[in-house]
Amino acid sequence: MKINNMFASDNCSGVHPEIFKAMEQANRGYEISYGDDKYTGKAIKIFKEKFGGSVGVFFVLTGTAANVLSITAASNTYNSVICAETAHINVDECGAPEKFAGIKLQTIRTNSGKIVVSQIEKFLNQKGVEHHSQPKIISISEVTEYGTIYTPDEIKSLADFAHSNDMYLHMDGARLSNACAFLGCDLRELTGEAGVDILSFGGTKNGMMLGESVVIFNSDLNNNFKYIRKQGMQLFSKMRYISTQFVAFFNGDLWLKNAKHANEMAQVLAEKLSHLNIKITNKVEANAVFAIFPKHILKKIREKYFFYVWNEEHNEVRLMTSFNTEVKDIEKFASDLRNCLG
Amino acid sequence: MKINNMFASDNCSGVHPEIFKAMEQANRGYEISYGDDKYTGKAIKIFKEKFGGSVGVFFVLTGTAANVLSITAASNTYNSVICAETAHINVDECGAPEKFAGIKLQTIRTNSGKIVVSQIEKFLNQKGVEHHSQPKIISISEVTEYGTIYTPDEIKSLADFAHSNDMYLHMDGARLSNACAFLGCDLRELTGEAGVDILSFGGTKNGMMLGESVVIFNSDLNNNFKYIRKQGMQLFSKMRYISTQFVAFFNGDLWLKNAKHANEMAQVLAEKLSHLNIKITNKVEANAVFAIFPKHILKKIREKYFFYVWNEEHNEVRLMTSFNTEVKDIEKFASDLRNCLG
Amino acid sequence: MKINNMFASDNCSGVHPEIFKAMEQANRGYEISYGDDKYTGKAIKIFKEKFGGSVGVFFVLTGTAANVLSITAASNTYNSVICAETAHINVDECGAPEKFAGIKLQTIRTNSGKIVVSQIEKFLNQKGVEHHSQPKIISISEVTEYGTIYTPDEIKSLADFAHSNDMYLHMDGARLSNACAFLGCDLRELTGEAGVDILSFGGTKNGMMLGESVVIFNSDLNNNFKYIRKQGMQLFSKMRYISTQFVAFFNGDLWLKNAKHANEMAQVLAEKLSHLNIKITNKVEANAVFAIFPKHILKKIREKYFFYVWNEEHNEVRLMTSFNTEVKDIEKFASDLRNCLG
Amino acid sequence: MKINNMFASDNCSGVHPEIFKAMEQANRGYEISYGDDKYTGKAIKIFKEKFGGSVGVFFVLTGTAANVLSITAASNTYNSVICAETAHINVDECGAPEKFAGIKLQTIRTNSGKIVVSQIEKFLNQKGVEHHSQPKIISISEVTEYGTIYTPDEIKSLADFAHSNDMYLHMDGARLSNACAFLGCDLRELTGEAGVDILSFGGTKNGMMLGESVVIFNSDLNNNFKYIRKQGMQLFSKMRYISTQFVAFFNGDLWLKNAKHANEMAQVLAEKLSHLNIKITNKVEANAVFAIFPKHILKKIREKYFFYVWNEEHNEVRLMTSFNTEVKDIEKFASDLRNCLG
Repeated sequence: MKINNMFASDNCSGVHPEIFKAMEQANRGYEISYGDDKYTGKAIKIFKEKFGGSVGVFFVLTGTAANVLSITAASNTYNSVICAETAHINVDECGAPEKFAGIKLQTIRTNSGKIVVSQIEKFLNQKGVEHHSQPKIISISEVTEYGTIYTPDEIKSLADFAHSNDMYLHMDGARLSNACAFLGCDLRELTGEAGVDILSFGGTKNGMMLGESVVIFNSDLNNNFKYIRKQGMQLFSKMRYISTQFVAFFNGDLWLKNAKHANEMAQVLAEKLSHLNIKITNKVEANAVFAIFPKHILKKIREKYFFYVWNEEHNEVRLMTSFNTEVKDIEKFASDLRNCLG
Repeated sequence: MKINNMFASDNCSGVHPEIFKAMEQANRGYEISYGDDKYTGKAIKIFKEKFGGSVGVFFVLTGTAANVLSITAASNTYNSVICAETAHINVDECGAPEKFAGIKLQTIRTNSGKIVVSQIEKFLNQKGVEHHSQPKIISISEVTEYGTIYTPDEIKSLADFAHSNDMYLHMDGARLSNACAFLGCDLRELTGEAGVDILSFGGTKNGMMLGESVVIFNSDLNNNFKYIRKQGMQLFSKMRYISTQFVAFFNGDLWLKNAKHANEMAQVLAEKLSHLNIKITNKVEANAVFAIFPKHILKKIREKYFFYVWNEEHNEVRLMTSFNTEVKDIEKFASDLRNCLG
Repeated sequence: MKINNMFASDNCSGVHPEIFKAMEQANRGYEISYGDDKYTGKAIKIFKEKFGGSVGVFFVLTGTAANVLSITAASNTYNSVICAETAHINVDECGAPEKFAGIKLQTIRTNSGKIVVSQIEKFLNQKGVEHHSQPKIISISEVTEYGTIYTPDEIKSLADFAHSNDMYLHMDGARLSNACAFLGCDLRELTGEAGVDILSFGGTKNGMMLGESVVIFNSDLNNNFKYIRKQGMQLFSKMRYISTQFVAFFNGDLWLKNAKHANEMAQVLAEKLSHLNIKITNKVEANAVFAIFPKHILKKIREKYFFYVWNEEHNEVRLMTSFNTEVKDIEKFASDLRNCLG
Repeated sequence: MKINNMFASDNCSGVHPEIFKAMEQANRGYEISYGDDKYTGKAIKIFKEKFGGSVGVFFVLTGTAANVLSITAASNTYNSVICAETAHINVDECGAPEKFAGIKLQTIRTNSGKIVVSQIEKFLNQKGVEHHSQPKIISISEVTEYGTIYTPDEIKSLADFAHSNDMYLHMDGARLSNACAFLGCDLRELTGEAGVDILSFGGTKNGMMLGESVVIFNSDLNNNFKYIRKQGMQLFSKMRYISTQFVAFFNGDLWLKNAKHANEMAQVLAEKLSHLNIKITNKVEANAVFAIFPKHILKKIREKYFFYVWNEEHNEVRLMTSFNTEVKDIEKFASDLRNCLG
């Protein structure tokens, strides 16, 4: 029997039909490569409408790359990057930030995946002393790896602190769309207007085939990014096929509809789990549900469904919804779970 | 008036319809990410049929990455990589091999882009002396950047020399398909059987949307490549969309048909240019034509067609054909050229 | 008034007269550079007597380099190194391990600076999964940064665990001499015989001018270290001047006498502080005393003596003794302290 | 019989007695480590007198480090450094510039080791195109590896070109003293006044035990160098022992006397060789003599004297003189050579 992956990750979904159709339409004739094509021009224009007219926009191929190249642009090798212990850049990039940017990560223990200024202050004791990596970037994930969401004010507070201390604020926005959907904010309110200097903005987890971007708000970081992207092995030749996806992604606010739907499905899923007396361990704000599954259930349900156990010790699991999760899928899952519960 | 890019590069073409169709067919349901999906399994199986049952196969996203990660796998930072001065790894990767692998490139001047053993021997004087980077890889491009092609015997001779001196042979096979088409060899004869240890094999320039691979013949280099790929920011989440392209690429020998067609179009183009008394500067073996365009023509024709001037001093240009070049396109180009010649 | 640095660090002391004399004696005639001289031959012979006949021995110029190059030799960039949060490699190398070796540090919170196997096990959950840096080295400091000391059994236990899990044990032995003096062990018992694979062994903090070394017990790590040292900018041309220092260092067990003296002085210092009701915060085993100085005292005494405040929040300070600390210096310090206490 | 190394390299000599004496005098009492000691303050003051009041001065431990860290300070990883093919940074650093700075070296073939502007222009074709490493540094060696010397005007011309093209001029001044001695210039005329932005200035080959420095003329490169030095594993704890050497080095113009003597000895040596009809292959300007030794002689004389064969094919050898070469040593060598000639 095929294992069901539908709740394993939002990158187990396919490509949204409208986005796929845009790729098909772009598949005609010759287009100059490496980004000088008409689709890329159009996509960048839309990014500027969404994020601000003066932003720099660079498409890359993986979320890891968006993060690592953002960090590279905003740091020297003797710098440190401050982030939550759970941050993707700390846990899930196989050391790419250290290897490529040469920096040190300095991590903060959190309950929810969110960090606050008071946790960062201690790292500044090291400023100016050459024995220690010099803090230069605060990096936050919006949505966090625990599915929680920073408000614009929370982001501003981190940005202000960063800027007061000659640091930059980086946002890993692999699921930024879901945060916008939850908060009812537009993209600008959570990024440039809140003081973000450089953003990894992803479409892959929200209905695109592949499409990640680096959006640069702070013009100091803009000039040389094209070289960083190329040396970072991320300059895609047939760029039109990413660009056209982003055009469709933004067309008719598809990005927001997709994200809203995914978030709603998480709420439905959480409710179903609660009805089964399964404990939800983090606030469900975006498209992730963290929950404690009794041990005997866990083994049994995982014979049918693959999903990640986040904390082995506590049997805490992560369930993700996506743009194409359907209520009936959730109901089937809840029913299968009920059977396991016996 | 829109500038015509059809001869600028084989990556200005779109995606072959059969390959696009395969992507469409893969776009249904959930698939586990990062390569454990059924399309990737199938694609790897085909690679093993084509290249040998014991090869390691890893899909990556750009040709730069295929080259740089291959070099990384086969070297330590204190090593050097010997290649032609014209090699893509030396000229067109913005220093990515040096940055990521930490190695030194040691280059050989050539006329045709091809190197021979007698040019490499001198670099071995440095073996064992710690002041000097230690030669560890010979890297060749098949097809070369000048559109010329190594025979299996020429490759064997380089491989034997490499192996006799504790070195590896790397092949940049971004256009390996075109070499197979020209020589009437299968993929194995030009790679594993000829002694290649590690291969960058590309589909993007031959009808795919994006799809590059690292094929590892020497099992010493196989074990840890997955970590190198991830840390190299090249692990694609929705892997099925590359894998399914490769499946279609090999289905019914589409890869070979595409390459044969591109090669034939280069022959047609070269013939047309010769009729116009335009000098061809390199043997036309694959899908590239290098030619000297009189200066006054060059300026005029480039108002209509964009293509690269390879050698500014000599007005040498590069014209590329691809899987979808048509004879009538070439005839139109020749006619436009004739008009420029006056 | 000149601030007194005598308790600031053991590297504030000068060079032991016998070691200085050896340098003077080596300062005659021509010697081939880069380590092929007679002094280096002699020094390596002595290292082999002390550490085992099959060890590799490489002299380097800083303790940072000894650590970073050891890690480089024993890891790939996609590996992680597990160490105490307080480890010098984590805190005091300005990110050199990350930058040069490309690795990630994974740290353990400790009270005493010492780590145990049960704290390391969790990191192995990540083994084999390419999203995560792969644990490859356990790195311990002997003496730790808190002046505490691992017993041979404690080291063995870490080594066994490392080797059972395809990992190496690295020891930062900047103050290994002090551990030998405390435990009554010879160098071999605490290193090769206890399972250490690669050792940073320092002389600078124990009476030498400059002299650090990498001692390689595991022959897998031996072959290419000379290239790592050179590329690591650590191959010193007039090598005889380091080598001759090490010869004198070992002659008549000067290394041990120096270390014993430094340790004894720390005991005397701790006793004097206790008499003043100053709280000692870590076991005094080597040549460091950690203590809580009442805040008003701290400011006053630091007008006369410079030393490091280890923990700002708790007014915890570090006082170091060295081979040339004298009892009368300690008495003077205690008397000055008493005056501050009022 | 002991092989004689006196002409092998200027780093086979010992330490000048006055410099050694200064170390002895510094070997008393406690000094704060890492450069805040009184000797370092004094040494930096002298550097400022010699090179200009606004220079940054940083002591490092090897010439490789001085070069590599200078390059690191003046480049991003996507940059290239243009130098002579024979440059030490290209030939003799085991790839340290590529590994540590991440840059690409772009080399120029020369006869004499000296480069001129007309050879550099072609590299600027790549400016602004992200596929190619971006030229950022011109690096010259003064004295060159062939013992030849740039005049102040030649340096100015390179500096002007560099600055007109948004590049820096780096000088590898491992033997800069010898150039000053030859040209009758002071240190400033050949460096800051000629437009050098950053300089590696060495004392080790001219009578010091170890002592290399980075002198920064362009204040843009000054601010963060202390972190680069530390992360580059070059921050020496007992700094006083380098600083005091530099103080003695400059005292009474010892540096210049040493260099003048070494240069004169090279002239004497060249003359003796000419008398034996041995062909001198490069202008003898500093302390190096390059000459063609007939093959049968070469083997025989190398049984008594070790020196480097620079060009195996042409039996070209390099003979170095130093501050303590004596005329009688040269006469003995000439006499031994005469015997070999038979």
